[in-house]
Amino acid sequence: MPLPAAPAYDRLVAISREAGLLGSVDGLLGWDQETMMPPGGGEHRARQLALLARLRHERLASPELGGLLADCEGRIDLTADTIEAANVRALRHDHDRAVRLPASLVEEIAATASTAQHVWAEAREASDFGRFQPWLEKTVDLCRQKAACYGWAGDGEPWDALAEDYEPGCTAAGVAEVFTPLRDRLRILLEEITAAPTRPSGRLDEIELPQAAQMAFCREIAEAIGFDFSRGRLDTSTHPFCGGSHCDDVRLTTRFHPAMVTDALSSTMHECGHGMYEQGLLYEHAGTPCGESVSLGIHESQSRLWENQVGRSWSFWQWAAPRLAPHFGSAVDGIDARAAYESANRVAPGLIRVEADEATYNMHVMIRFELERALLSGDLAVAELPETWNGMYREYLGVAVPDDRRGCLQDIHWSMAALGYFPTYTLGTLYSAQFFEAACDAIPGLAEGFAEGQFAPLLAWLREQIHRHGRRYSPRQLCERVTGRPLSAEPLMRHLEAKFRPLHGL
Amino acid sequence: MPLPAAPAYDRLVAISREAGLLGSVDGLLGWDQETMMPPGGGEHRARQLALLARLRHERLASPELGGLLADCEGRIDLTADTIEAANVRALRHDHDRAVRLPASLVEEIAATASTAQHVWAEAREASDFGRFQPWLEKTVDLCRQKAACYGWAGDGEPWDALAEDYEPGCTAAGVAEVFTPLRDRLRILLEEITAAPTRPSGRLDEIELPQAAQMAFCREIAEAIGFDFSRGRLDTSTHPFCGGSHCDDVRLTTRFHPAMVTDALSSTMHECGHGMYEQGLLYEHAGTPCGESVSLGIHESQSRLWENQVGRSWSFWQWAAPRLAPHFGSAVDGIDARAAYESANRVAPGLIRVEADEATYNMHVMIRFELERALLSGDLAVAELPETWNGMYREYLGVAVPDDRRGCLQDIHWSMAALGYFPTYTLGTLYSAQFFEAACDAIPGLAEGFAEGQFAPLLAWLREQIHRHGRRYSPRQLCERVTGRPLSAEPLMRHLEAKFRPLHGL
Repeated sequence: MPLPAAPAYDRLVAISREAGLLGSVDGLLGWDQETMMPPGGGEHRARQLALLARLRHERLASPELGGLLADCEGRIDLTADTIEAANVRALRHDHDRAVRLPASLVEEIAATASTAQHVWAEAREASDFGRFQPWLEKTVDLCRQKAACYGWAGDGEPWDALAEDYEPGCTAAGVAEVFTPLRDRLRILLEEITAAPTRPSGRLDEIELPQAAQMAFCREIAEAIGFDFSRGRLDTSTHPFCGGSHCDDVRLTTRFHPAMVTDALSSTMHECGHGMYEQGLLYEHAGTPCGESVSLGIHESQSRLWENQVGRSWSFWQWAAPRLAPHFGSAVDGIDARAAYESANRVAPGLIRVEADEATYNMHVMIRFELERALLSGDLAVAELPETWNGMYREYLGVAVPDDRRGCLQDIHWSMAALGYFPTYTLGTLYSAQFFEAACDAIPGLAEGFAEGQFAPLLAWLREQIHRHGRRYSPRQLCERVTGRPLSAEPLMRHLEAKFRPLHGL
Repeated sequence: MPLPAAPAYDRLVAISREAGLLGSVDGLLGWDQETMMPPGGGEHRARQLALLARLRHERLASPELGGLLADCEGRIDLTADTIEAANVRALRHDHDRAVRLPASLVEEIAATASTAQHVWAEAREASDFGRFQPWLEKTVDLCRQKAACYGWAGDGEPWDALAEDYEPGCTAAGVAEVFTPLRDRLRILLEEITAAPTRPSGRLDEIELPQAAQMAFCREIAEAIGFDFSRGRLDTSTHPFCGGSHCDDVRLTTRFHPAMVTDALSSTMHECGHGMYEQGLLYEHAGTPCGESVSLGIHESQSRLWENQVGRSWSFWQWAAPRLAPHFGSAVDGIDARAAYESANRVAPGLIRVEADEATYNMHVMIRFELERALLSGDLAVAELPETWNGMYREYLGVAVPDDRRGCLQDIHWSMAALGYFPTYTLGTLYSAQFFEAACDAIPGLAEGFAEGQFAPLLAWLREQIHRHGRRYSPRQLCERVTGRPLSAEPLMRHLEAKFRPLHGL
């Protein structure tokens, strides 16, 4: 006999939706801060965001929510593949983590991060690690305290506890298991490329093009690949991002340089990938776990897939190259599909992660993963960070770091106390390659269709396989469901080798 | 012996600031909705705003706040001219009103208004009052219930209870006392103008000018009169408004027509007046009554003052007219200060309030005041509204209303359940004239200085006399403090007669 309808579940969902609404307001305010807010608004904005964060945390950590969860757990088969079971499982996860973190530590971390970001920006500007060092030491210490509050599995380490916020179920050991073979094979490929007889030409990116025309070109491509402008926007900001409120209001930004239109386009397609994932969540589940993205790694898989597997592919440029001239006129005379494709695929080991190409990008990420893992375990002292950083850049990428500004001070993440975050960039890249192989297997002629502007089959497949599920499945479960295999470095390496060897005459 | 420091007051301020923060978030979301939000975001935005309104109401109506107020009232001399006494008085006012309104009625009004606005927009489009009539009947009924919850003074009427939300201390009898002589003298002036031998020319407003150049011109003027763009923005929207979050983040909008640059400019200067008032509030009091604007009437006095007393003055155009050519080039050849001044001051009785000139505008407002007062008292049935409306337009403005779209369906306010709001437009206009006379008395050569671009003395005077006080004084007290007299129709009529008689050869 079925149990009576559970008002506890309805009330659980109502609290979750209220927390979700507060989060969606927070999302809008964050977007506004980077795109629209006048400079004078910063102090008050920090107060608005702090209040919203507190109200959201109060709801997730509330004893009422705890009681409702216990009630639901007694009525629902938690192993069932249903929306209800998935929501209860995810809210239990979020509630237990919220409860474990004392409000005083949350506030101390927020206050420290607020100052540390400021100090970091100054230290980066002055290329003076010494100025940032005490703040990073304090941040690492607070992150260790946070990890201790959360706890980790017996055979794990503090890093695992922090990564759970970004990639549920992820452990440092698990990451290392995938990253180690990736690193070894990437080093071989990069050595081959460095010694290669020919190199792709960067002709398209040597041409200065007006910003308004670059924006119009990017908009045309964004719309063509499936970003829904009736439920989103595209603006400019210093660092491109995907923000906004919810699936029906997604705010993307991109950036422009006088030359380097392929940078503007790949930034746009990257953010479109994030944005189309958000737009593919179901509004009926908004504010509940099944209406939220499952992890940063899966999120990044969507952005990387549209940026790289689509936007840096030969078939894509067969379609896109003829679209340059209507926007840029005679400035792009002589830029055919081949020239554009080569410009989008130049490889050059460099110092800066956010400017890295597809072949070297993951090296930057893996360096950071190893370093933050060692910082948290205590194997590396903060004072030794610059020297260790520079040594790894020499070893992994063969480049000499001239100063800390272009070295260990380049990223904002650690100053925000976001340790455990970096690997999601490479996990996402690995997922993207594995998902794209599965999509190609499932849809005959998929990549060839890009040459005809046929992107809808890919988006429909991603919607069905990934987007609509929200947090119904864990990242690991999702990967197995979609690809039939656990995550591995193989598909990405196959993709990189198949592209970059021919491009370098290998 | 002084009383011990009162933690009750500090806690009172903390709750007020939290309610204020929620209100400031609401303000940003409202701005975003009108300027940036993609169409698909509407449904979720309504939910976000409803949640913020509820959280704010919960704080203002909370028993904790009531207890703290009682505690403070026992310790503080409430008649003192101090920040503390003013904050306690204002929070008592807001708390008592919040408590009197049952949440169920608040929700019913919000839900009705949401649908009624939608129906109103359709009915206006179709010029079909019958479609809107049942919704207006329901709205008037709910407003009567709301008035009954609030209550009013023994010799007052339901309208008073509603107006208190917009203009504290305002009563229908008090408004009528000022409006009646205004109406009578305005009718005489309008009759004179209609029969006048000469009329100002509208040459400037017959020239089509590019929108980007109009925006650049408006920005230059906005900055010159004192709007601080480091703490604000100017964008475009269908209906100009002043929104945003707080004194350091003020968001203005304006509108453009192909011709009619004086409309774009006066909309901009109007919103700048609102915006400079907001920017003149003190951030140290943000989120407390002393950091909030005192009433819609006083707010409107600032917008009207910059729009009319400054922006439609002869000395202003002596300075502004030479600034046209750099933006518009040869298109404005032959437009000197006189031509621009005349274009900004054409008078023509018309049907539409938001397009009305300075001389006829208040007639539109007074008609609405008389009608909403009669609707609330029961002297006028909703069904009789169109006929009564049309009769008053014939009588007061001498124009025949051809349809309800250009008649009683033109304004959104009643569909939003905002009865009691309209008179603040004319109260503000009256305040603006009275304040400006006081400013001219206090600052020798004030108006003449506009011809040299000297607007800072006026803004400094308004900051000192009005802006920085927030809700420290009631509108009535403020008027007496600033001008030494209660509000009257005299200053406005002096201003209008002194300007429009010469312009019409009288």
